[in-house]
Amino acid sequence: TRLSSRFTHANSFALRSHTCGELRKSDVGRKVKLSGWVQFQRLNKFVLLRDAYGVTQLVVPDEKLDILNKIRNIPLESVISADGKVAARPPGQDNPKQLTGEVEVILDDIEVLSSSISNLPFTVQESPKVKESLRLEYRYLQLRHESLQRNIRLRSEIVMKMREFLVRVHGFVDIETPTLFRRTPGGAQEFVVPTRTSGKFYSLVQSPQQFKQLLMVGGFDRYFQIARCYRDEGTKANRQPEFTQVDIEMSFTTKENIQRLIEGLLNHVWPEDMGRIPIPFPEMTYKDAMKNYGVDKPDTRFDNLLQDVTELAKASEIFRLFGSSEIANFAAIAMVFKSSAALVSKSAEESLLESAKMTTDKTKLSFVLIRMQDGNKWKSSLTKKLTQETMNSIGDRLGASAGDVILLGLGPRESLVPSMGKMRLELANHLETLGVKLRSNTNNFLWVVDFPLFLPSEELDGGPLQSAHHPFTAPRPEDEHLLRSSPLDVRGLHYDLVLNGSEIGGGSIRIHQSDVQEFVLKEILQEDPINLLHLLKALRCGAPPHGGIALGLDRLMSIICETKSIRDVIAFPKSLDGKDPMSGAPTSISEKEKKMYHIGVVQNK
Amino acid sequence: TRLSSRFTHANSFALRSHTCGELRKSDVGRKVKLSGWVQFQRLNKFVLLRDAYGVTQLVVPDEKLDILNKIRNIPLESVISADGKVAARPPGQDNPKQLTGEVEVILDDIEVLSSSISNLPFTVQESPKVKESLRLEYRYLQLRHESLQRNIRLRSEIVMKMREFLVRVHGFVDIETPTLFRRTPGGAQEFVVPTRTSGKFYSLVQSPQQFKQLLMVGGFDRYFQIARCYRDEGTKANRQPEFTQVDIEMSFTTKENIQRLIEGLLNHVWPEDMGRIPIPFPEMTYKDAMKNYGVDKPDTRFDNLLQDVTELAKASEIFRLFGSSEIANFAAIAMVFKSSAALVSKSAEESLLESAKMTTDKTKLSFVLIRMQDGNKWKSSLTKKLTQETMNSIGDRLGASAGDVILLGLGPRESLVPSMGKMRLELANHLETLGVKLRSNTNNFLWVVDFPLFLPSEELDGGPLQSAHHPFTAPRPEDEHLLRSSPLDVRGLHYDLVLNGSEIGGGSIRIHQSDVQEFVLKEILQEDPINLLHLLKALRCGAPPHGGIALGLDRLMSIICETKSIRDVIAFPKSLDGKDPMSGAPTSISEKEKKMYHIGVVQNK
Repeated sequence: TRLSSRFTHANSFALRSHTCGELRKSDVGRKVKLSGWVQFQRLNKFVLLRDAYGVTQLVVPDEKLDILNKIRNIPLESVISADGKVAARPPGQDNPKQLTGEVEVILDDIEVLSSSISNLPFTVQESPKVKESLRLEYRYLQLRHESLQRNIRLRSEIVMKMREFLVRVHGFVDIETPTLFRRTPGGAQEFVVPTRTSGKFYSLVQSPQQFKQLLMVGGFDRYFQIARCYRDEGTKANRQPEFTQVDIEMSFTTKENIQRLIEGLLNHVWPEDMGRIPIPFPEMTYKDAMKNYGVDKPDTRFDNLLQDVTELAKASEIFRLFGSSEIANFAAIAMVFKSSAALVSKSAEESLLESAKMTTDKTKLSFVLIRMQDGNKWKSSLTKKLTQETMNSIGDRLGASAGDVILLGLGPRESLVPSMGKMRLELANHLETLGVKLRSNTNNFLWVVDFPLFLPSEELDGGPLQSAHHPFTAPRPEDEHLLRSSPLDVRGLHYDLVLNGSEIGGGSIRIHQSDVQEFVLKEILQEDPINLLHLLKALRCGAPPHGGIALGLDRLMSIICETKSIRDVIAFPKSLDGKDPMSGAPTSISEKEKKMYHIGVVQNK
Repeated sequence: TRLSSRFTHANSFALRSHTCGELRKSDVGRKVKLSGWVQFQRLNKFVLLRDAYGVTQLVVPDEKLDILNKIRNIPLESVISADGKVAARPPGQDNPKQLTGEVEVILDDIEVLSSSISNLPFTVQESPKVKESLRLEYRYLQLRHESLQRNIRLRSEIVMKMREFLVRVHGFVDIETPTLFRRTPGGAQEFVVPTRTSGKFYSLVQSPQQFKQLLMVGGFDRYFQIARCYRDEGTKANRQPEFTQVDIEMSFTTKENIQRLIEGLLNHVWPEDMGRIPIPFPEMTYKDAMKNYGVDKPDTRFDNLLQDVTELAKASEIFRLFGSSEIANFAAIAMVFKSSAALVSKSAEESLLESAKMTTDKTKLSFVLIRMQDGNKWKSSLTKKLTQETMNSIGDRLGASAGDVILLGLGPRESLVPSMGKMRLELANHLETLGVKLRSNTNNFLWVVDFPLFLPSEELDGGPLQSAHHPFTAPRPEDEHLLRSSPLDVRGLHYDLVLNGSEIGGGSIRIHQSDVQEFVLKEILQEDPINLLHLLKALRCGAPPHGGIALGLDRLMSIICETKSIRDVIAFPKSLDGKDPMSGAPTSISEKEKKMYHIGVVQNK
């Protein structure tokens, strides 16, 4: 860790002269005072003292019996402060792995500030390997580990740099907006908060979206906020009931201006030791992303693109086998992983094909894994049913050769494409666990644009259209005339920011014309405008054109810190089920509180 | 307003070349593009264009009929962008009140970006005088007013400077802590948030207190956060259901170190045009504050101290009149306002005396207002009942002379002292509304220290003691031995920060020994330790000595901005009853949500 060098002022107002990561050979002879945790001790003579900044070796001189008595049997993780003199370590005893490894502190005295229990549930060093429920229960122990110290401190540093860039370089104003508000129609499920007025509830905001637009109407033309947001989605792998977004909005701007602002922002905060990021970021349409990657957040660090072989399939016996007239919009899509045939075991193949069917309309989808052999011979479950001519035409089109793996998917295009996108990632992950290097060693930022503004209803009986993102996104000007006639063909001025296949942000130019907003809400989405009356009214009072973006800070930090979960970049995360194993939250409340908030607990099955 | 000079980079990524507050005589001849709101127009020729940074006069050349057509009848507060060329104003037409008052922009073209309705509920200029419910309903209109622009932007600037001081100068780490947590025992009423698990609720944190202590245990030795906090207290004049505090905690430190840190912080962020603040701040004990000012947050900008005349009263007929043996702990306290007798009308006197009785045990308290006349003659309701000797002795002791006002209070000391403190402020306010200059023109910071650690139970039947501040405050080391024998005599290592008679912060050195914390919780406060088991467990795992502070950002900003209410330094405040007149929050929720959260609405009485 190189953190210590960044925090040179960490000793002001503190009962220490130096941190435990600070002393060097040039300090030899200096009288110092250190405070920290006993990480290790040996022979009642050597103590390894740790704080957030590093470790320093303390040495008890033989004649100091009083110190000896204090540290004898002192439990590890006890807190002490130590006075002493810096000395060079004896020849041959330097520890090059420690920043302070050339020196030690010969003790004059120590004070035991807080004695730890001796039976800690786990040691700080082993904490990353402890099962998560126990780690979260004793989160304060794990927080002492250098990996979490690094993640949380780097998060602070990156947020600080964001602020400096936005405020000092570009004149943005940091404005706090309420979290106790009223329900936003059409978004995620929002937590509710009962009040002392019977039957009246606040909702916890899922984003400052409405407020930031109202700020634009209110003349704050360059707003940002590191904003706490809330969503009750059940806790998914990379979700938390509360999370943080970098929330930005500007008036009198364009999509491209906001994109350039964000590129500048990320370039400014990107850790130096991770290399520079190339800006501007490339841009890809939603259509191309889906076509080539089967997903709207492509991981462009590797190719293995989806290839459409529908025409070839239709011209062959495949159509008869899989594409009977029952399947509307039949498609055949394939992708090739070169020289991978020997790396996909039968069981890997089965779990890969199974996973693709998990989330989609499995009755109409078929997937085949083909191991290519010499002469366009396919080793696959399909081989017997196909003519060599068909295998030739597809194999040639794909440029596949002996030793390659082809994944071929067949079925309705709408469900086939995302399944193929999923399999592309899963097969790549599988190959990489076996040591194949598929992904480039880069950080691939990507703008995905030209999303449709609306999606068909998810209801079977065909309810009103839904917003692809949210009801405030403006249509592309050249598509605006289609709003009435053909709303599903309208593309929005929305932009998603993708990093290495993860969506880390999204934003749009907003609708600033009250009549357009009203039409979208009432006529297209068929929402009750009562929930957004304040916004509609505001747009009638002189609303500047405006747009913005929100970056998911937890996810961004997780990628920067290379952690498996966003929980590793949050000081006190909830567990997957939304609980806090440390405090036991959530808990029951008192009858007095139930009465105060006019609520009763109802047992639903 | 001098804001425009601070925001020199406000034009990047925006569809303007300059803000409306930026153009000067040196820009004459320059082609510019401005965007903003139509604040005023005259003769279809002059348009005053406003944005957050100022106003600029636009001029329609006579020959430009197309522009004329666009602005003819354009409603005020419409949003336009304007292209044109900067010109000096004709001789004699400079407006020295405008930053841009020496120039105007001769228009080439304008674009109407958003037309306002013509019947706005109020104009931006008159918004400060509109009644609050209407102002809050159309908050976005009021936000355009330069006073709110200044307050909110200054808040952003001060918070940014705090961050720079804490992070860049002193190596603090900005760490976000959860707001969804479990109930803190013994504090304010906390909002509850139902979850999808039947009967289980989160509480919205009233402060990050527990988390910041756990961070210290976790090795983050210099923490801060601009933290959103929640309290359900009913909305008092200076309270909001959600508010913001500057939350700070350090390990290995002392009370004095934290005081010096905060003085440095406030000195660093204090607006230059408000003058420097003298540091270190003076310190006063709780005992002295109560004795001299009758309150634990003294406004030291004026004297008129409380003076104890109990002995004189007891030696006189006053004791017989007011202090009969029924009144335990009888006291007589007086204060003098020089040369004010003519300024206190009979009705002012009545409301003053009445207000003092409002909040206290009025049956045992008596208050008398005395107008001093020549020769120690008292003009008061009491005069007939007293001997001249008594009047002489008290008048002489107080140093009162003809024309002065004496306020004399009689009754049980515990309730008399705060009443006198309240009357001191009320009489001062009354005199100041009449033009008397009592308060100095300074910003008086003050540390109040040596609070008792515990208070007697508020319950009549004498329940357990209560924490004066919170259960985590450490006792003064020299008083620690009294914890068992005489807990009400233990002073805490607590410090309140007072500015001009308002408490703007408070903090303490915390208990870091698990046995002491457990004794305080279980034996003294008689709390069920289940609610704080996680903290007790943490203190057993090696807890560094630590302490911290929290500053009330809303209140601090309100004093800096000289606003009547904290609502004027918050972008979207709730009204006094906790409602949002703009959106109508809080609202009812759907049956589906009630089912999801296993709650029913109960009608109490």
